[in-house]
Amino acid sequence: MTYLDAAAAIVGPTQILTGEALAPWRRDWTGQYLSDPAGLVRPGSTAEVSALLALASRHGQAIVPVSGATGLTGGAVAGPEAVLLSTERLSTIRSISAAERTAEVEAGVVLSTLHAAAEEEGLLYPVTFGARGSARIGGLLATNAGGSNVLAYGNTRDTCLGIEAVLPDGRVLSLMSALHKDNSGLNLRHLMIGSEGQLGIITAAVLKLVPAPRIRATAMLAPRDLAAALTLLNRLQDETGGKVVACEYMPDIYIAGHLRYVAGAREPFGQRHAHNVMIELASPSAADAAPGEDGQPRLSAQLEALLAGALEEGLILDATIAQSEAQRAEMWARRESAAELTFARRPFVDCDIAVPLAQVAAFLQLIRQRVRALVPGAEDMVVAHLGDGNIHYTIYPGEAGLAQAAELRALVDGTAVELGGSFSAEHGIGLSKLPAMRAVKDPVAVETMRAIKAALDPAGLLNAGKTIP
Amino acid sequence: MTYLDAAAAIVGPTQILTGEALAPWRRDWTGQYLSDPAGLVRPGSTAEVSALLALASRHGQAIVPVSGATGLTGGAVAGPEAVLLSTERLSTIRSISAAERTAEVEAGVVLSTLHAAAEEEGLLYPVTFGARGSARIGGLLATNAGGSNVLAYGNTRDTCLGIEAVLPDGRVLSLMSALHKDNSGLNLRHLMIGSEGQLGIITAAVLKLVPAPRIRATAMLAPRDLAAALTLLNRLQDETGGKVVACEYMPDIYIAGHLRYVAGAREPFGQRHAHNVMIELASPSAADAAPGEDGQPRLSAQLEALLAGALEEGLILDATIAQSEAQRAEMWARRESAAELTFARRPFVDCDIAVPLAQVAAFLQLIRQRVRALVPGAEDMVVAHLGDGNIHYTIYPGEAGLAQAAELRALVDGTAVELGGSFSAEHGIGLSKLPAMRAVKDPVAVETMRAIKAALDPAGLLNAGKTIP
Repeated sequence: MTYLDAAAAIVGPTQILTGEALAPWRRDWTGQYLSDPAGLVRPGSTAEVSALLALASRHGQAIVPVSGATGLTGGAVAGPEAVLLSTERLSTIRSISAAERTAEVEAGVVLSTLHAAAEEEGLLYPVTFGARGSARIGGLLATNAGGSNVLAYGNTRDTCLGIEAVLPDGRVLSLMSALHKDNSGLNLRHLMIGSEGQLGIITAAVLKLVPAPRIRATAMLAPRDLAAALTLLNRLQDETGGKVVACEYMPDIYIAGHLRYVAGAREPFGQRHAHNVMIELASPSAADAAPGEDGQPRLSAQLEALLAGALEEGLILDATIAQSEAQRAEMWARRESAAELTFARRPFVDCDIAVPLAQVAAFLQLIRQRVRALVPGAEDMVVAHLGDGNIHYTIYPGEAGLAQAAELRALVDGTAVELGGSFSAEHGIGLSKLPAMRAVKDPVAVETMRAIKAALDPAGLLNAGKTIP
Repeated sequence: MTYLDAAAAIVGPTQILTGEALAPWRRDWTGQYLSDPAGLVRPGSTAEVSALLALASRHGQAIVPVSGATGLTGGAVAGPEAVLLSTERLSTIRSISAAERTAEVEAGVVLSTLHAAAEEEGLLYPVTFGARGSARIGGLLATNAGGSNVLAYGNTRDTCLGIEAVLPDGRVLSLMSALHKDNSGLNLRHLMIGSEGQLGIITAAVLKLVPAPRIRATAMLAPRDLAAALTLLNRLQDETGGKVVACEYMPDIYIAGHLRYVAGAREPFGQRHAHNVMIELASPSAADAAPGEDGQPRLSAQLEALLAGALEEGLILDATIAQSEAQRAEMWARRESAAELTFARRPFVDCDIAVPLAQVAAFLQLIRQRVRALVPGAEDMVVAHLGDGNIHYTIYPGEAGLAQAAELRALVDGTAVELGGSFSAEHGIGLSKLPAMRAVKDPVAVETMRAIKAALDPAGLLNAGKTIP
C-alpha cells in the first residue's frame, strides 16, 4: 500500500489531494518556487497529524509541512518524492482568556481571524504584516515571523507562551503552558519556533495578547537622514515611555515605485523627499485617549509637540499626522503594498537582511555600489522595518543579469554580515538562503543544528533539503 | 598526567584550586547542598575555556560549571569525580553602546557591576533580584534567571540578543549578534539559555539595555483579596500604558516573618492586613517626571489618583506611596530580604512554582491544606512575583517532618501542575527538581531533551546527573 493510500485510512479519502487538485500548491505566490508533490494530506486533528507522521516514519515517506503558503524563501516547496501536509483544517480558536490575556489556537488559524477574535475581547494579537489574510499561526511560529510591530511587541516567538508539536516519528510534544515563567529543562518551545518544519509540525499554541490600543497616532515624516530618524525614534520612545509600535522606512525609490505600480497611490507630502518614515504610536491608556486642552487626544498632541520640536531642530524636514482613520489607513496601505510593488517587475532577487540600527545607511550606500559594480544598470527597491534594522532589499538585474542571481544574493548577505548583521532577518532560510547558511553562518552553529536534526529526525524525512545545509 | 595537571598548563598553576582552597565551594549558600570536587579551574578567556573542555573530552573528565554560586537548586554541586570550572575571571564589560542600547559582557560580570555601568550611560539592565551583588551574567543566562522586573522586561532570555558558548567538546559556538531579528536556522541561543550547563558553558553575551527611568512611583497596597490585586494590576498597566515594573505579593505571614527575623524591619501600614502588595511604576519619559498641577511628578500623581479610585471602590483597603528614595528603599528592602527571612528557620523545603495569574489564591489555599494533612503542624512562608504568577513557597516541616521532604516537594509541584502551572518557575531544575521532571514533565519533552543532550555531549561529561533525568 502506498503512503497516500494508508494516509486515506487516517484522514478519510476526501482529505487527500492529488493530480489536478494540487494546482494551487504547484507554484508559490512569488512565482519563484515550483512544487510537484506526490499528494497533499489534510489532517483534522493533532491525533491525525501524529498518525500521519508515524506512518511516514514507517514508510520512509518524505513530508513537507505547509501552512498559509505566504513564505518568501521556498520553505514549503515539495518535489515528487514528497507529500505535503497542510494544517489548514486545524483552524479552531480554542479559547481566549480576557483576564489572563492569552489565546489558545490551532496551527491553521488565519492571522487576521485571530486579530478579529482578539479585538472582540478588547485585546490585540500584535504580530501583523501584509499577508495576514492568508498566513496561518503554524507558519508564523515555524518561521518566527516578524512584521511591522516587532519594535513594540517582539517577533512571533516573543508572543508565544506554549506550544504543541508532533515530532518526526509521530510523538506529540505537549508544552501548552500559559505561564510567564517556566524554567523546566531545555527550552524546546524556542527550539521548535523558527525551526521551519525541520524538527516537527506545530499543531497548537498559547499566545499572549495585549490590551487593544484606545488611541493611535500615525504620521509620515521626512527625516534629514537616517541618523536623524534614529535620534527621533529613540526620543519618541523615551518621551512616550515606549509607545512607538511601528517605524517603517520608505526611501524615495519606494515612493516612486508605489506611485507607479499601485492604483490610487498618492504622494505622502507636497514635495518629494529622499527619506520617508511612517511612525505609529499606540496606547491602551484612557488618559492618552482623552482630549487635552487643545481638544485632541493627549497622545496625538504629544506626538505633534515632539514633531514640532524635531522640525524646528532640523531632524525632520516635513511631517503629516493622520487626522482620520482613513488617512491612517492610507499610510499603512502605502507600506503594506511592499510585496505588490516589489514583485511588479521581473526578474527580481529579493533579500531580507538585518544590520545594527546605526548601520542601515551604510549598508544601503555600500550595497548599491557593489550591486552596480557586479551588474551595471541593475535597479533596486528598498523598504525597511527601521526600528529593527531589518531591510527588504530587492534587486532587478534584468534578464541578462539574472545569471548572476546567486552572486548578487551572496553580495547582499556578505555585506550585511560584514556590517555586523545577519543574512536572514524575518523571512527565514528555506531554500533561498541555504548558500548563505553554508558561506557565512558560524560553522559550529551549523554543525550543532545538524546534530540536533539527526537526533530528532534520523531518517531526515521532515522538510528535507532546507534550512540546515 | 591528571586532568588538573594538564589544565595547569592551560590556565597556569595559580588558577587551579585544590584542598583547603576549595572551602568556599564545598557548601552552597542555602546550606542544603554539599560539594567535594577534585579541584576548581579558573580560565581567563574563551580560548582557555575551550582548551579546558577539549581536554576534559580527551580525559573523560566530568566538569561542573559554576558562576556566582547563588542558585537555589544545587545546580553547581560537584562530587569527587568532578572538577569545577568557574567563569569568574571572564569579568570584562567589553562595550556598552548607548545608541544601540546594548552591552557586550563576559560571563563572569557580576550583575550589580553591569547595573552600575549601564546607569553611567543613562541606561538600565532590567534583570534584578536580591543576589545581584554576587550573581554573574553566565549564571543568569544558564538558568534564565527571573526576578522582580520580569513583568515589564521579561526573563533573562528576553534581554539577550547574542551569545557565545563553548560546547562540551571545546568547540566555540559564536552567536554574538546585536540584532533584533535574526532567523537563521534553529535558535541555538534560546537552547543554550536556561540549559543549566548541560549543553555548553556560556562565555559572553550581548544584552539589551533600556532607557533608565527618570521617575519611579512605588507603593505598598493592601488589596481586599488576590482577585482585587489582579484587577488593579491590569488597570494600572492599561491606564499607564504598561509602566508597572514590579508587583510583589507579601501575605501577612511574610510581614510577620520580616518583623521577626530582619533587624530594623517596620510595619508597612498602621494596621496589619491579610494581603500586602508592593507595586512600582517606572518611566523614562520627561513628561512623566515633570511636575503637574499639584507640584508632584505626573506619574506619581497618576498613581495616587488610580489608588484613590481603587480605595473608594474597595479594591484596596490601604495604600502608602513612597514619598522619598529612602521610603522606596525600605519597601524594596522588605521584599528583597525574602531569602534572609525564609532561611532563618531550619529545616526548610523551598519551592519555586508558577501558576496562571488567576490561580494564585487557589494554589495557596489548596497547598496549605494538603501540607498540613501530610505533616500536621508544618508551617510555611509565602512570597510571590504576583504579576508572573510565580510563588516562592517554603515549608518548615520540623525535624520530624523532614523525612517527608520529598513528598512535600511532590505535593507542591503536583498542585502547581494540577492548576495549570509549572513545578519550576525561575530557579530551574538542578538537583532539587529532578524528581518533578520525572514525575510531571511531559515525557516526550524529557525524551527530546535526552536526545539533544546525547547529541551534543555524548559522553555526558558536562554537569552530569542534573536538570535532565
